[in-house]
Amino acid sequence: MSFNTEAHPAVAPQAPAQTQGFRFNHTMVRVKDPAVSLQFYSTVFGMRLLRTLDFPEMDFSLYFLAHISPDQPAPEDEAQRTAWTFSQTGVLELTHNYGTENDPNFAYHDGNAEPQGYGHICFAVPDIDAAERWFDDNQVTFIKRANEGGLKGVIFVKDPDGYWIEVVAAAALAKLGS
Amino acid sequence: MSFNTEAHPAVAPQAPAQTQGFRFNHTMVRVKDPAVSLQFYSTVFGMRLLRTLDFPEMDFSLYFLAHISPDQPAPEDEAQRTAWTFSQTGVLELTHNYGTENDPNFAYHDGNAEPQGYGHICFAVPDIDAAERWFDDNQVTFIKRANEGGLKGVIFVKDPDGYWIEVVAAAALAKLGS
Repeated sequence: MSFNTEAHPAVAPQAPAQTQGFRFNHTMVRVKDPAVSLQFYSTVFGMRLLRTLDFPEMDFSLYFLAHISPDQPAPEDEAQRTAWTFSQTGVLELTHNYGTENDPNFAYHDGNAEPQGYGHICFAVPDIDAAERWFDDNQVTFIKRANEGGLKGVIFVKDPDGYWIEVVAAAALAKLGS
Repeated sequence: MSFNTEAHPAVAPQAPAQTQGFRFNHTMVRVKDPAVSLQFYSTVFGMRLLRTLDFPEMDFSLYFLAHISPDQPAPEDEAQRTAWTFSQTGVLELTHNYGTENDPNFAYHDGNAEPQGYGHICFAVPDIDAAERWFDDNQVTFIKRANEGGLKGVIFVKDPDGYWIEVVAAAALAKLGS
């Protein structure tokens, strides 16, 4: 029998038919300055800007980023690409409320300081040491380097708003946990 | 020329070679009671439990959920499946710090009340009206129904910890934004 789910008393043994076609599309965080965040995510993490949606009458813009390969059939037409963006998975949505970038005292809450809730996003990379050098080349702020702390091989860095980003090399984590 | 990225002065025109193979693996939120959250995400949203990692010496467990199709080659071997889990995209990680489920006054911060930061996760669904009926069938708490407010066709519900979940039908959103 092929793998379906790990067993847990609370987990439905099968996905209900009513959830067929459900897809985890995106994760949204608010950012103070989209120019800073877009530079960071497109350069340091290689994400592409799939779509920008502006709502000037409500003073905010939304930026949708993801990793796409050059041979992926993303529509050139903007309306079609909006629909396409919402049908992808692994999308990061950045919300910019106009004006925050001009307030030197403005900062968002990272979810790891109190009050806690949200923790982090995580990127898988092919080579953790090469990734660490790349982060150093880009003056990224480290919370934990690969060789520090209890979880060897796992990196934590901060994004420009202070949100935590975990970075892992998938193959190296096979023995993680009990 | 095929689509690569939307233009923005801050966005790198191409993904740097050093980011090749980078993948947005997961989003982590802390949950008060994993039995409640696992029931919710596996039933209401049809996610499967890819992997549980227990760290009893540090009093926490991690639960990794995603949508997988039955024909997807997920390894049966647990160590291999851990590595496989970290190589996927669209994964939701739930962190359970032991004991929170027994404290009636304990609650996590949703990121939308002050202090703000994290906003929500979003699921794309094939049929927004069918999804709304399914949420009603499961007594899910609505923040906004599809026909309420300014963004017609977009649903917001709460997960058991109060985290916001957006639900959209991708094709219906083509005309969103300016």
